[in-house]
Amino acid sequence: MDIQKIKAAIRNVPDFPIPGIQFKDLTTVFKDAELLKELGDGLYDQFKGMGITKVVGIESRGFIMGPILATKLDAGFVTLRKPGKLPAETYCETYDKEYGTDTIEIHRDAIEEDDIVLIHDDLLATGGTMLAAQKLVERFNPKKVIISCIVELEFLEGRKLFDGTTPVETLIKF
Amino acid sequence: MDIQKIKAAIRNVPDFPIPGIQFKDLTTVFKDAELLKELGDGLYDQFKGMGITKVVGIESRGFIMGPILATKLDAGFVTLRKPGKLPAETYCETYDKEYGTDTIEIHRDAIEEDDIVLIHDDLLATGGTMLAAQKLVERFNPKKVIISCIVELEFLEGRKLFDGTTPVETLIKF
Repeated sequence: MDIQKIKAAIRNVPDFPIPGIQFKDLTTVFKDAELLKELGDGLYDQFKGMGITKVVGIESRGFIMGPILATKLDAGFVTLRKPGKLPAETYCETYDKEYGTDTIEIHRDAIEEDDIVLIHDDLLATGGTMLAAQKLVERFNPKKVIISCIVELEFLEGRKLFDGTTPVETLIKF
Repeated sequence: MDIQKIKAAIRNVPDFPIPGIQFKDLTTVFKDAELLKELGDGLYDQFKGMGITKVVGIESRGFIMGPILATKLDAGFVTLRKPGKLPAETYCETYDKEYGTDTIEIHRDAIEEDDIVLIHDDLLATGGTMLAAQKLVERFNPKKVIISCIVELEFLEGRKLFDGTTPVETLIKF
């Protein structure tokens, strides 16, 4: 995979969603057939052979490469969603964000104890959403949890939240 | 693809999101590695060889099989999102739903005139969301537009909205 080519295709949008944030827009990568395929292959190469049985995607941008990765890994795909979106019984977790608080939910039948779980999102920033996702997944007491993000904003040091607990793999660093 | 097996795995949730709706929950299909793969193969079989260059997924549940389908078809993936989520310039469309109104947006650089576009969502019900999506995509004047949903609630007759304009392909009928 040509990481530099993918990195170059990411659109930087200043002051979105609020002033001061440099938003990394991956839609310019996803809409390009060749880059989408390369990104899927690159993510697959990171996680193949690890016995992953479930990929958990965080709504909504974690739903894009998460399902592709699940199919390539012969794993199932689980959605981690905003409140009130999942129709059956859920666990939920509320957390602080840069701009306010948020809640995410997971179905209570989503994960088994013998699953090896990859949690996927597009971006690792301060890590608050991912930490809430990790807490939700750990409730199921799975064999192993691994974290995957396409882009990491290294200066925000989000990966420190997972030191000594969960491996964090990212492809593109800013 | 074993459609009956996939159909049997769909969870019916009565009175969600509001009383009187029988919600068809596909999370029980997506979380199953084998069914996820079969569903991806089944969708691919419907649309292979048609020259599709872009798959447009409707947020959020159209983001699950849409990207898988895009990768299999060697197409790009475009997101059609709720208002305020896309960071660059957008077109938007507001429409009526069974329960209130809603707006969807698409980036202005998402589609080209020489694209053959597949619009994908999980479910075709009354068709209001899909009609808004079709209108948004037609603004780009692409070569061809095709509609794909995994599940169709036939008694709601959503496909009538597209009679004579756009082919509608669904896999599982209720």
